[in-house]
Amino acid sequence: MSETDRSRRRVLAGLGLAGLAASVGCEPRQPAASAEVRAWDHSADVVIAGSGAAAISAAIEARAAGAEVLVLERLPKLGGSSAMSGGVCYLGGGTPLQKALGFEDSVEAMHDFIVAAGGLHPRLDKIALYCEASLEHFQWMVDHGVRYIPKFSQEKELPYDDSSLYYSGCELAHPWRDIARPAPRGHVPAVMGHTGGRAMMEALLAAAQAAGVKMMTAVSCERLVREGDGRVTGIQFTANGVTKSARARRGVVLACGGFIHNREMVRRYAPELYECSTPWANAGDLGIGIQMGMGAGAAAVRMHQGFAILPVYPPERVIKGIVVNARAQRFIAEDSYYACIGHETAYTQHGKAFLVTDADCSYDPGDFRMPLLAEAESIGELEAKGGFVAGTLAHTVATYNAAAARGEDPLLHKHPKFLAPLATAPLRLYELDVTRAFCCSHTFGGLETTVDSQVLDVFGSVIPGLYAAGRTTAGLPTAPYIASGISVGDCTFFGRRAGRHAARETA
Amino acid sequence: MSETDRSRRRVLAGLGLAGLAASVGCEPRQPAASAEVRAWDHSADVVIAGSGAAAISAAIEARAAGAEVLVLERLPKLGGSSAMSGGVCYLGGGTPLQKALGFEDSVEAMHDFIVAAGGLHPRLDKIALYCEASLEHFQWMVDHGVRYIPKFSQEKELPYDDSSLYYSGCELAHPWRDIARPAPRGHVPAVMGHTGGRAMMEALLAAAQAAGVKMMTAVSCERLVREGDGRVTGIQFTANGVTKSARARRGVVLACGGFIHNREMVRRYAPELYECSTPWANAGDLGIGIQMGMGAGAAAVRMHQGFAILPVYPPERVIKGIVVNARAQRFIAEDSYYACIGHETAYTQHGKAFLVTDADCSYDPGDFRMPLLAEAESIGELEAKGGFVAGTLAHTVATYNAAAARGEDPLLHKHPKFLAPLATAPLRLYELDVTRAFCCSHTFGGLETTVDSQVLDVFGSVIPGLYAAGRTTAGLPTAPYIASGISVGDCTFFGRRAGRHAARETA
Repeated sequence: MSETDRSRRRVLAGLGLAGLAASVGCEPRQPAASAEVRAWDHSADVVIAGSGAAAISAAIEARAAGAEVLVLERLPKLGGSSAMSGGVCYLGGGTPLQKALGFEDSVEAMHDFIVAAGGLHPRLDKIALYCEASLEHFQWMVDHGVRYIPKFSQEKELPYDDSSLYYSGCELAHPWRDIARPAPRGHVPAVMGHTGGRAMMEALLAAAQAAGVKMMTAVSCERLVREGDGRVTGIQFTANGVTKSARARRGVVLACGGFIHNREMVRRYAPELYECSTPWANAGDLGIGIQMGMGAGAAAVRMHQGFAILPVYPPERVIKGIVVNARAQRFIAEDSYYACIGHETAYTQHGKAFLVTDADCSYDPGDFRMPLLAEAESIGELEAKGGFVAGTLAHTVATYNAAAARGEDPLLHKHPKFLAPLATAPLRLYELDVTRAFCCSHTFGGLETTVDSQVLDVFGSVIPGLYAAGRTTAGLPTAPYIASGISVGDCTFFGRRAGRHAARETA
Repeated sequence: MSETDRSRRRVLAGLGLAGLAASVGCEPRQPAASAEVRAWDHSADVVIAGSGAAAISAAIEARAAGAEVLVLERLPKLGGSSAMSGGVCYLGGGTPLQKALGFEDSVEAMHDFIVAAGGLHPRLDKIALYCEASLEHFQWMVDHGVRYIPKFSQEKELPYDDSSLYYSGCELAHPWRDIARPAPRGHVPAVMGHTGGRAMMEALLAAAQAAGVKMMTAVSCERLVREGDGRVTGIQFTANGVTKSARARRGVVLACGGFIHNREMVRRYAPELYECSTPWANAGDLGIGIQMGMGAGAAAVRMHQGFAILPVYPPERVIKGIVVNARAQRFIAEDSYYACIGHETAYTQHGKAFLVTDADCSYDPGDFRMPLLAEAESIGELEAKGGFVAGTLAHTVATYNAAAARGEDPLLHKHPKFLAPLATAPLRLYELDVTRAFCCSHTFGGLETTVDSQVLDVFGSVIPGLYAAGRTTAGLPTAPYIASGISVGDCTFFGRRAGRHAARETA
């Protein structure tokens, strides 16, 4: 896209902003004062907004601690974005599954990988706790009906078969493979065809239902209810257009997803993600949980972060190609996790990159593939067709080829198994433009919480009675997203802690 | 910095997070309910937190509209960060100063430049209004004692002499020079020695005092006061350790700067800026205004954005050098505004870049300069000393030199006047590492406001009685920062609108 096009597009896209207040609606969404609630239509010890992995894990644990629990889901169907996901849970430190398959792992290696790879200033307290409790959390998943089998997948992608363990992230890529001993930590429910998320949520929802958690669907949470002293004691929602009030005797848990489908919110908070072609989440990801929390004074942090996934692979042979930016420079090892490739493209290359392949490593007609921009008999021809400055792509390929022939990649350290000179015609140029290629995006910013999932206000104080978990919070997933399963892992783990802590609270 | 060092540093830096609530203090900072205010110690029509350009512009306009105005400043001295700044105001469309100096400009050219260069999804309504009203705003500055003289500076930097007009940003750099007709728009008070900000604030403060604005210093605003219906009607502050309440009959204006000196807040919201070596603002930039607004449910957007300035130049001859990343690749035209060079380095190159010069374009001993990393007789030697992959820097320089000899820069379009082959020994390598070089940072994220500076809540509704301006808001300055004077321009212009609108409001 030329700068002029980009500028024009901005002008068009921006016209909504002038009438922002009008377009979003002027209904007051600040917390309601409890004194204004005339009658409580429902009541429970713990009231939970949302029904994905974070919400249901919270529900199960609160119920196990003896609390009466009410789950409120906006959509007609339970399960949230978690049910759409791969259901991968990032676990390690020597889980029974890792051991059964002969993989050695340690809490320390898992911890060091997440800390080192996870971008600037991750939440170290959450990471440490998550890693230390990983074995217990695995057992909890199993105890609540999530089924794993001792079958390992070699694929560098969510298994399409019923394998339950794989390398789900960047563990084997440079420099992480040298910083922390790699281990496969992507734990996937043993089901065929990328339906792990559905299987996981079916298990957790069944456990919650069996335990006596009450659930309502097609009810839209709208605002919190709080006391004069700031304690959150309930939530208001609409059901069939009628406002209802639910009292939460011990706590409210906001676990209703991120905000990728609230496009205005994405534009205001996460402009880089707004560019990405494909918002990726359940339709309920409207940011209402984050907004309700912020309306009560909660801090929402890292709101610009999220994943921007460019699934360059599978097939794996494509990784033998090279990824370049608009100046034909390589900028990331092509065997990096595809969320890292997408992140670097969206956030550091102004949304624009390219994949160069030769005949041996290009997509097959049947593959899901990136848009083909040009095909040529020589690199010089491809360079011209792609609009690169003369000599730039030729130099990049020549340098790459010379080193690849020796099994080396001194510039970016792609693993030798993916190194081969690009030589056999036809050479192909695929577009990795986040606005045009398949680039799925999801938000990671959200409410700031303690390790017990208590929501913090902007001054760092706990908001009494208010909890949050999952993508309504800023949790373990940061940008770049370094491995599948960290989001679901964070949802289930800190969802559980929200439920347990809320159940214990006495107003 | 190696990844291991980086990882170690993160671990150390992050230890504070576990005790977040404890370390920030647990004093409740939610708005106080007006019913709890026992007595109003002060009252005015419009109460303003802060005393920089935004605050004092608001004060002057509110007073001119007949309002009684009270200004509350945290520090013992008035003037805010504006008084520390260059005092540059970005104005155009054919100001009397531009005309007197023979420069043609149009509202459209100014608008197109700001929209095209200013990053993703800027606030188009604010930009349009700001450009349309630029001539009137210039006249207002003059009428309130800010003195400009018809003297133009050729320097690509804030004039050190008393010149009042210069190219303060990226207008002449590629691709902007072809998108919008360039004009110098940096309007600077006519004083010697980078003291324009002080001169501007002396003028505005004198105008405010003459008009009868009341001002208190060394009083710390702590929280807003609001009614049961959500209207903000006052502010509480501490003076000598005693809590006082000030009633605002028509409105409160939050104009007390950004948050670059609240390091915990920078780490949580703007991790890239946290890395930069030199927080750049008045000591009052603690984020308290943003926190008070958020505590009342306001939306704070673009919290990760700010400027990260690497003042590679002056001297201008250094621009004949080249800037490369850790892979020895060029990534930005070296004649870009130094805030753009800093932004690209901090946000897209993981904080690390280098400047390569030859004998003809390196710093002199007397220059303020970036840290010298290596010196060599040949590029090959410099490459080795700098730790670049063999052949990478050599190729970059050879390619650059060949084109520069023809007066061309096909890769990045640096202006021909800065093009010359790098050849004469000694060759030098300077570090542009944002953590180690002088890299000054300032925040741009803040409260979302209407064009009348009314604060919006997270659902897009106006919070009655609450206004904000300057770096307490998300205004015209976005990342990358494209020209000096856009921040002060935004402060004064939208500060004025806050004052005028608040003065008209009736509760």
